Amino acid sequence: MMIRALVFDVFGTVVDWRSGVARDIRRVIPDVDAEVFADAWRSQYIPALDQVRRGELPWTNLDELHRASLDELLAEYGVPDTPESVRAELVLAWHRLDPWPDSVPGLERLKKRFVIASLSNGHVALLVNTAKHGGLPWDTVLSAELFGHYKGDPEAYLGAARLLGLPPEQVMMVAAHVDDLAAARACGLRTAYVHRPQEYGSQPAVPPPCSDPEADVSVASLTELAERLNA
Amino acid sequence: MMIRALVFDVFGTVVDWRSGVARDIRRVIPDVDAEVFADAWRSQYIPALDQVRRGELPWTNLDELHRASLDELLAEYGVPDTPESVRAELVLAWHRLDPWPDSVPGLERLKKRFVIASLSNGHVALLVNTAKHGGLPWDTVLSAELFGHYKGDPEAYLGAARLLGLPPEQVMMVAAHVDDLAAARACGLRTAYVHRPQEYGSQPAVPPPCSDPEADVSVASLTELAERLNA
Repeated sequence: MMIRALVFDVFGTVVDWRSGVARDIRRVIPDVDAEVFADAWRSQYIPALDQVRRGELPWTNLDELHRASLDELLAEYGVPDTPESVRAELVLAWHRLDPWPDSVPGLERLKKRFVIASLSNGHVALLVNTAKHGGLPWDTVLSAELFGHYKGDPEAYLGAARLLGLPPEQVMMVAAHVDDLAAARACGLRTAYVHRPQEYGSQPAVPPPCSDPEADVSVASLTELAERLNA
Repeated sequence: MMIRALVFDVFGTVVDWRSGVARDIRRVIPDVDAEVFADAWRSQYIPALDQVRRGELPWTNLDELHRASLDELLAEYGVPDTPESVRAELVLAWHRLDPWPDSVPGLERLKKRFVIASLSNGHVALLVNTAKHGGLPWDTVLSAELFGHYKGDPEAYLGAARLLGLPPEQVMMVAAHVDDLAAARACGLRTAYVHRPQEYGSQPAVPPPCSDPEADVSVASLTELAERLNA
């Protein structure tokens, strides 16, 4: 493998969205079960992206998608009177998520040997804020926003390789989600699976697989990825 | 001034293109005056960008523009037999330019208080390589390439503010070139002028002005900029 750059899924792979979002929900809406609400909020994500992918919605960034699903959920969970300022504040919870403990040490090592960049469905501003909050040492932020296509669509993966000036086979997609990796692989990228058993909490309805047999490597942390890639 | 992000011109403002390019020319084509050749190469830059701005050329990145002007200059300077591999190598000289001595210390300080990003006519891959070579600690790389418009065109400045999720007046353009700052200011950005008297060597034909009276601040280094902005 001749790999020059690694591009990373962020939410779930590099940062722990569930704990961070639940922490802010607990603070501002103490009446709901924060973890259940966080899971419900995240579960709206895939159908919302699919609407954009199918062209039923024009390009809509994650703040806007998060806000629309938040408004629905607040009604559903019996807190429809939540004020505007609290809603705006909650959308920003997604901008200040903590990295998993191995993320920054792993990225620091990988950065010495490879170009490292995000490749997330989050928009650039969200990713810059998340990196600033958690000290993620990206060489640059790459986002679905730059291509007008959410991941899953080939434009996102091929666009990342093009902007980095590399053929797809010299770029490795790193993610905790097998569908993201499968779409990257279909575009010719190398793939690394990261097992994040806590992404959906300690008792997830569907535990993520321990490894992805289709990926070039499967690891349990970004520091293990650095070891495997001799970084 | 409520500034949230600083965006930086790179070539001349953050890195010393002339010494770096001349160093590589001296190494691979010892028969030409390296500094004179470097100046001639750079001087092709503005007319080439203008061709793209006027739509006479489709979007063409800096590697491609550098290569076309290099081919012309090699003929003009009496070294038309320069092999392909040397030409390709010389284009890459622009990817490994050294920062001015104050650049990294200044950026490190500014990064603690502001989002810092490049905003250069260089393409993303060139900027990532330049940052990696010089240890420039960008929060993210922004490039004219992302907007399909070279600086001077408002799309570049407004596009940068939009991707950072900020109104233009919360973004400050930092550059050693008054025309770049004037174009940014026309889009509503704040501006900081950096005096780089050595950009065109120790005896430039036209010395750059010591300050820009139209800019919000004029400084002699990025560390001075950090002081002026209380970073």
